[in-house]
Amino acid sequence: MENCIFCKIIKGEIPCEKVYEDDDFFAFLDIKPVNLGHTLLIPKTHIKNLYEFPDKLISKAGPIIKKLALALKNGINADGVNLGMNNDEAAGQLVFHTHFHIIPRFKNDGYIHWKGKEYTVDETKNLAQKIISSIP
Amino acid sequence: MENCIFCKIIKGEIPCEKVYEDDDFFAFLDIKPVNLGHTLLIPKTHIKNLYEFPDKLISKAGPIIKKLALALKNGINADGVNLGMNNDEAAGQLVFHTHFHIIPRFKNDGYIHWKGKEYTVDETKNLAQKIISSIP
Repeated sequence: MENCIFCKIIKGEIPCEKVYEDDDFFAFLDIKPVNLGHTLLIPKTHIKNLYEFPDKLISKAGPIIKKLALALKNGINADGVNLGMNNDEAAGQLVFHTHFHIIPRFKNDGYIHWKGKEYTVDETKNLAQKIISSIP
Repeated sequence: MENCIFCKIIKGEIPCEKVYEDDDFFAFLDIKPVNLGHTLLIPKTHIKNLYEFPDKLISKAGPIIKKLALALKNGINADGVNLGMNNDEAAGQLVFHTHFHIIPRFKNDGYIHWKGKEYTVDETKNLAQKIISSIP
């Protein structure tokens, strides 16, 4: 898509440090890494976010994410790996060409985890029902 | 697996608020939600983490994650959705039966995002090479 930074990266119009490419996907180092080695996996076609990902294409992403996670473990000695994906601005999406974050983690690297909230029993049942009735 | 809390949830030995189930996967509300509606998607077989996920099975996860994300958008009016997965203790994994977090987000819900670091050019090239040479 015109003016999409990730489409330009795929076409080679903006430089990147590529780590993986196949017919459908492209992976490169995030230029603002949470930790060095932080990798972004993107589809080569311009897809805005998770909601618009064709089933056939997203099915191919899982095994590639696993490969890249293993490469972070074995290649740069990560102690752990986070997978992340932000959909919509409210969830922290900054580039509207969908991307998976594959983030190497190291013991005591200082990142905090979001704390959990508490449910009342009624809230749980009510919410579950709303979710179930909206599964497409 | 014996003594796995998620295996017990699947077997019905520990109660949960189930939102989805098929032959391979099971989804339910996290009891300590980042936001109410926070859903966990798990494989029915005991798999420790991403690294051990069979390719055939992880391929099936993508379309289900998308369905559940759409259900959070449409069913509880989430403004956005985060996908997350923590592998190993260093990445925040607490239950060693692999699970995808599908988290509804709302405008200004107060969660911070991890800040990016800076690379030197040499670091980037060096790290990319290590990752590339370790892709299985």
